[in-house]
Amino acid sequence: MKIEPIGIIHTPYETKNECPIQPIYAAATIGRVEVFAAYAGGLKDIEGFSHIYLLYHLDRAGEIELVRSTFLDDEPHGVFASRHPCRPNSIGMSIVRLKERDGNILVVEGIDVLNKTPLLDIKPYVSRFDCIEGATEGWIAKTKWRPKPQGIE
Amino acid sequence: MKIEPIGIIHTPYETKNECPIQPIYAAATIGRVEVFAAYAGGLKDIEGFSHIYLLYHLDRAGEIELVRSTFLDDEPHGVFASRHPCRPNSIGMSIVRLKERDGNILVVEGIDVLNKTPLLDIKPYVSRFDCIEGATEGWIAKTKWRPKPQGIE
Repeated sequence: MKIEPIGIIHTPYETKNECPIQPIYAAATIGRVEVFAAYAGGLKDIEGFSHIYLLYHLDRAGEIELVRSTFLDDEPHGVFASRHPCRPNSIGMSIVRLKERDGNILVVEGIDVLNKTPLLDIKPYVSRFDCIEGATEGWIAKTKWRPKPQGIE
Repeated sequence: MKIEPIGIIHTPYETKNECPIQPIYAAATIGRVEVFAAYAGGLKDIEGFSHIYLLYHLDRAGEIELVRSTFLDDEPHGVFASRHPCRPNSIGMSIVRLKERDGNILVVEGIDVLNKTPLLDIKPYVSRFDCIEGATEGWIAKTKWRPKPQGIE
């Protein structure tokens, strides 16, 4: 399967230690999603959505382990039961707030990825499809927020 | 970027005309997500989540057009402001209900993809990250439900 970047995500985060683990831990962080000119036509009508999904290539993720602990607790969890960036196929996903569009640039809030992350897709966030109230959160329900440990990927 | 399937999604839908446009239109449809044995270890703890994201390869999508009408109305919209399957990089995303796990098979409800769709990733649905109440739905807010037109991709 052939995958090519359609743009680049510009953020203030140059290192993994700086980078938050999820958009809700980066609520005030502004990023600029640059969509390459060849794809910019596909942004028509995106301004109407307050939130969008970004799919991107976790291009600096470390070694894949199928079971490992995450940033949220010290227990080992399956990679498909977590959002850990070191995963087969290295596709990351974030829901961010769309503040404004400036041509082929989307200014977004709540961005949690490394600077210059390759963008793969944008999809609109649609509450009626995507907001599932009362979904069971598994092991994550038992965790408390804690700062991200230093020195890990 | 190298992408390889990690499994196969088995569903009752053999043709595009049969296939619903979103999981909420396929609420009763049961599918079986087969995770290849080499990756099955990554499913540890997934049973605790009531809902999961499936990322998959839209392997039978038609020609990509950056602006086109969708199944929801007759107006042209940018592909990144819609969930249309014919999109750059051909990555599809569905949120489905996880009914049970049987080894490397996940039985899911609300599946809206073609039979034998290649699976790329599974991520847990976490309400605190993913349920954004009051998100603005753009042009989709103005549409009413209608049956999917016949004979289109």
